[in-house]
Amino acid sequence: MKENNNKNSVELCVLCGEPEAVILANGDYPTHPRPLQILANAPYIVCCDGGADAYIDRGNVPDVIIGDGDSLSEENRRKYSHILHCVSDQETNDQTKAVNFLLSQGKRNIAIVGATGKREDHTLGNISLLIDYMHTGAHVRMLTDYGIFIPCHDTCSFPSQPGQQISIINFGAHNLRGEGLVYPLSDFTNWWQGTLNESTGTEFTIYAEGEYLVVINY
Amino acid sequence: MKENNNKNSVELCVLCGEPEAVILANGDYPTHPRPLQILANAPYIVCCDGGADAYIDRGNVPDVIIGDGDSLSEENRRKYSHILHCVSDQETNDQTKAVNFLLSQGKRNIAIVGATGKREDHTLGNISLLIDYMHTGAHVRMLTDYGIFIPCHDTCSFPSQPGQQISIINFGAHNLRGEGLVYPLSDFTNWWQGTLNESTGTEFTIYAEGEYLVVINY
Repeated sequence: MKENNNKNSVELCVLCGEPEAVILANGDYPTHPRPLQILANAPYIVCCDGGADAYIDRGNVPDVIIGDGDSLSEENRRKYSHILHCVSDQETNDQTKAVNFLLSQGKRNIAIVGATGKREDHTLGNISLLIDYMHTGAHVRMLTDYGIFIPCHDTCSFPSQPGQQISIINFGAHNLRGEGLVYPLSDFTNWWQGTLNESTGTEFTIYAEGEYLVVINY
Repeated sequence: MKENNNKNSVELCVLCGEPEAVILANGDYPTHPRPLQILANAPYIVCCDGGADAYIDRGNVPDVIIGDGDSLSEENRRKYSHILHCVSDQETNDQTKAVNFLLSQGKRNIAIVGATGKREDHTLGNISLLIDYMHTGAHVRMLTDYGIFIPCHDTCSFPSQPGQQISIINFGAHNLRGEGLVYPLSDFTNWWQGTLNESTGTEFTIYAEGEYLVVINY
């Protein structure tokens, strides 16, 4: 992992858009200061099912616990029944239930932490869902222990540090072209093709028509 | 993680095709008995760059260390220079360099371990490369701490245990249909849509035209 210690919190704010709510998903509990900071500063916290156990174990109380209750401890299910919002929908996962719940409360600026690091197929699912959340008009960012995932469409610019590690995962966008990146972009058809790029300056731009994910590693 | 303790090693053999070589990539070192077993029984071991440090630290010596040497310790680079195969190609990552090296040695049945668990964009890249390796005629499986990733094309059947957690990630296949799975398949356009399926019996079949990845969780 490459760490840019001079990347300041103002920039993190720009990338995350000052979330109105943070979702703590049911993957590995964050260990990196950036997702932990987002979690500590969150004005409203939704924990996904068993993710609540880890959060409560650390001396916190979430605003809402969401899911189907199947991975939450019996003790916490009883103790926190007043904030437990059970949604039994086999078609969506707990992360999506949490996003939908927040949207129903009018909260559109959302950060997701703790969504990766366990089963890789869950990680893949959680990451790809960011594209679907974008369709709803939500402004959702995922912060992992390694970087920020940002769902995008069409042309977008991002603040960066020279040498910052960038990956672009294409979700069907065309006419991809980069500015401020070491390696040229093209209409990638396989995920790996847009990985391992690097910013050359304090901003980079992706020109595109269509949808893609940007990964900005810390 | 769902663990089926009755899933025997014969079945693992069927899924992995008795690898001629194992690649230890540069992600998190495996902790689950299945990738560790594959590593312990490997007739030939290629470590990707810094992955060699972790392997050597545990008292082992790989057959070959491959990569551009940028994440290998100075000490091991000196001590194991006779087995260090440096490939400086910016267009591929170390995992792919290792696969290409093995193919050049005539070794086509390959298992990859330790390829996930650090930066998620690396994980995505390493997983998606399995599809490219399939194009070369290589028989490559990835074993993580949670399951086995198998690149497939067209119709395929797999041994399983009832209740085993299955995900299918579509890479452009059409006419997807499943047999022996709880949820129906369709021509998924986003990764998450094929996740969180489940086997109903001791075998399942995916009918398809085109390419996809199957994830069989332990």
